Amino acid sequence: MRLRDLGEWELLRRLAAYAPAGQFNDDAALLEERSGQQLVVNTDVLVEGVHFSDATIGPRDLGWRAAAANLSDLAAMGCTSVAGITVALVAPGDTAWSWVEGVYAGLRDALEPYGAVILGGDCSSGRERLLSITALGRLADGTAIRRGDGRPGDWLISSGPHGLSRLGLALLLEELEAAQVSPELRQRAIQAHRRPTPRLDAVAALHSTRPSGLPWRVGGTDSSDGLAAAVKAIAATSGCGAVLERSQLPIDPELAQLEAGEHWCLGGGEDFELVLALPPSWAEALLAALPGTSRIGSLVEAEPGLVRWQESGEALAAAEQGFTHFR
Amino acid sequence: MRLRDLGEWELLRRLAAYAPAGQFNDDAALLEERSGQQLVVNTDVLVEGVHFSDATIGPRDLGWRAAAANLSDLAAMGCTSVAGITVALVAPGDTAWSWVEGVYAGLRDALEPYGAVILGGDCSSGRERLLSITALGRLADGTAIRRGDGRPGDWLISSGPHGLSRLGLALLLEELEAAQVSPELRQRAIQAHRRPTPRLDAVAALHSTRPSGLPWRVGGTDSSDGLAAAVKAIAATSGCGAVLERSQLPIDPELAQLEAGEHWCLGGGEDFELVLALPPSWAEALLAALPGTSRIGSLVEAEPGLVRWQESGEALAAAEQGFTHFR
Repeated sequence: MRLRDLGEWELLRRLAAYAPAGQFNDDAALLEERSGQQLVVNTDVLVEGVHFSDATIGPRDLGWRAAAANLSDLAAMGCTSVAGITVALVAPGDTAWSWVEGVYAGLRDALEPYGAVILGGDCSSGRERLLSITALGRLADGTAIRRGDGRPGDWLISSGPHGLSRLGLALLLEELEAAQVSPELRQRAIQAHRRPTPRLDAVAALHSTRPSGLPWRVGGTDSSDGLAAAVKAIAATSGCGAVLERSQLPIDPELAQLEAGEHWCLGGGEDFELVLALPPSWAEALLAALPGTSRIGSLVEAEPGLVRWQESGEALAAAEQGFTHFR
Repeated sequence: MRLRDLGEWELLRRLAAYAPAGQFNDDAALLEERSGQQLVVNTDVLVEGVHFSDATIGPRDLGWRAAAANLSDLAAMGCTSVAGITVALVAPGDTAWSWVEGVYAGLRDALEPYGAVILGGDCSSGRERLLSITALGRLADGTAIRRGDGRPGDWLISSGPHGLSRLGLALLLEELEAAQVSPELRQRAIQAHRRPTPRLDAVAALHSTRPSGLPWRVGGTDSSDGLAAAVKAIAATSGCGAVLERSQLPIDPELAQLEAGEHWCLGGGEDFELVLALPPSWAEALLAALPGTSRIGSLVEAEPGLVRWQESGEALAAAEQGFTHFR
């Protein structure tokens, strides 16, 4: 049995047997601390040729994106502050120092708004360039966001538009002719691909909009693997189904006109928005307080993990599941 | 300018400019917590062909060694407990599941004695096999071990023998004929290479042997890069010199008879012992309490980082500095 026979999800399922039960259920790991705060730790690895290439991203943007992807996982756990990151860098000996310098400058750029720093790390020679980043964040006890904390009746909320990062990649790879999109959308899509923003601001908005008397209970994850995968993960882990309103997909109107638009919105991935399951009163308050946020559907009593279209009742196509490693 | 032109130490020096001043001085990073405890975080990367090969280590021993190397860095910071690790695994799609299974079983074996767990991680396909591990540990406020906390007059203490891991590697690589060492030493050397023990027990012994009235001040690091490199790092960061007693090198008597014996003791690396700089009264108490511990020299007022032989007054040869990446 080889890893490519297993695929990424089966591999992760098997690896979870080496950790405490449920430990791998969320975007990142929660550590109990004595202080009334909880620590969150998250590790992401970015491999040349798999996650990035010189053809589509320069070193400074790569550093930014690598840090932002990790901070997005902290936001997806409900972190309100970021302590910092450790960085393992692997690169061949003929790698230019200027490339490494750019990556670290980009990492620093992405951390600075949060008062976070590079805590440490390791370096090694190796055949391909690779970054493995571990981010540490904090949240107040009892205010975690968990994939499994959704309930039937919750509204599904997206913190922003989806598909832009994939559009940006398509433009950079020339899968799409530049003339097919307006210069304004092109610029926005490439920015979304190269300089995504982790949505820690959405966590702050969750705190400020919680209706009094409502206990903290927020289901959620980030959309790094795609919007449909995020909805499916919340529904499956929460033991319920989901309906999505096709007319309410969080997609740029111009992108929606492209043939691949809806597909990229659902499965493109790497938009690094938050997808949340909230009681309706809280969801309404969040929608009013946080520009760009929209309601995309609801959790419902149904087969766990089954995602259907509100309008047609049909299940979402499996093709929207996003990228899988090793296959 | 390429990484191989810089070499590992100059690369790390340049990367340190992207972190707060002094952040990269120690084996791992200290995070201030509110609870009176400090959190320690450490990242190590192990790359196939650089840090391991199928020819010398099987998957279960590799997992053990990878976790042990990280826990050794936690011990070197003074951690008394281990929370857990995150694991980033990169491997080609044709990697056997049985290899991955073995690695994770070995990781779990190494964590179990400390009640520590695999907290999370990430997987990716890639051209070469690689593990990037981040370990989290804890220590009571004000009881860190720092490389820069040595003072002239301190005794230098080694928690155990050095050179065995390198001897084990030499036997596995057949650099040395099996007949050149006794079966007993061969077995011990290969065990030292494949299943090193992180010395958290030595940290516990430091706590139990501190003479009353003496404040906590422990200079130290682990000997993962070699004994001489550890002594040099303590001396340099503490702003003093060191003298080593050649007659007191912590080396197995049989290994000392081999031509390369002293060289491997000083520069072989990966023995994962602690090298400590302590006030003499504390050092004496530790030597009496912890079997296998020995005095190897002293810190002295001298050019920072200069390491001399007590007997001859000569400086240690630069050849004892250990392995350098990218060159």
